Amino acid sequence: MLHIRNIQEQDYASIISVINDWWGGRQMADMLPKLFFVHFQPTSFIAEENGERVAFLVGFLSQTFPGEAYIHFVGVHPDKRKDGVGRLLYHHFFDAVKQRGCHTVRCITSPVNKTSIAFHTKLGFAIEQGDKLVDGVSVASNYDGRGNDRVVFMKAI
Amino acid sequence: MLHIRNIQEQDYASIISVINDWWGGRQMADMLPKLFFVHFQPTSFIAEENGERVAFLVGFLSQTFPGEAYIHFVGVHPDKRKDGVGRLLYHHFFDAVKQRGCHTVRCITSPVNKTSIAFHTKLGFAIEQGDKLVDGVSVASNYDGRGNDRVVFMKAI
Repeated sequence: MLHIRNIQEQDYASIISVINDWWGGRQMADMLPKLFFVHFQPTSFIAEENGERVAFLVGFLSQTFPGEAYIHFVGVHPDKRKDGVGRLLYHHFFDAVKQRGCHTVRCITSPVNKTSIAFHTKLGFAIEQGDKLVDGVSVASNYDGRGNDRVVFMKAI
Repeated sequence: MLHIRNIQEQDYASIISVINDWWGGRQMADMLPKLFFVHFQPTSFIAEENGERVAFLVGFLSQTFPGEAYIHFVGVHPDKRKDGVGRLLYHHFFDAVKQRGCHTVRCITSPVNKTSIAFHTKLGFAIEQGDKLVDGVSVASNYDGRGNDRVVFMKAI
């Protein structure tokens, strides 16, 4: 039985210790300082199954653009990837930010992450025009600094 | 002549390309994805001198704790460290978040960063009780994940 709840500060230690493994050894922990688990709890969620954390989503409301929300990080346990948990978390987030007056959600991913690109496209995200094409996908060069190209997603909710 | 203004998305490329150098070669860029320059502009600032960016502060309002603000990242050009630019940016931030209803500012630093600890203490930050002492300073073990101890600061404004 899947249960979704708001993230808590206490979830951090357990999530951060598995995050690199969940991402197949990629060093992801630096991208997820504890601040996201402390200060963005109203729009960040944990999915639990039988009391075990199987997925999480960290997002927030833009403080520059009223009506916009941003998803920073999503992680799903490798064994749970086909169960629609990610999709469920996204919809939970959409509902939460809609209730807080948002009409637009943005997020980004790496051009190498084909699974992520397919996932977001299937969820109805559009890809914003970048400055080059990678395998037919528009990409913003050096978006997150030199060498860190990103695909930029946007969805009206 | 020093001029402080709100951060813009366009500042990112220039800041991110110098940040590791400003920090004496420490790899800091991963801690500063572009999202902070996009979504937290009302409480993030750039200090310019003769049209050159000499310092910046990235902070935001807590979305979990109303009345709390958080400073995530501050960088000052190595040649400008003695000029009080950091202090000026902090006070600019205090004013900005006070106007938005905040009474408390939090931030963290590494226990190895003695300059940062001295700076925050001088500015009136208190150090929150951690679970061990490092050189007489209370430290929260593994705060940002295993091995990433942090000194946790708090200031009423």
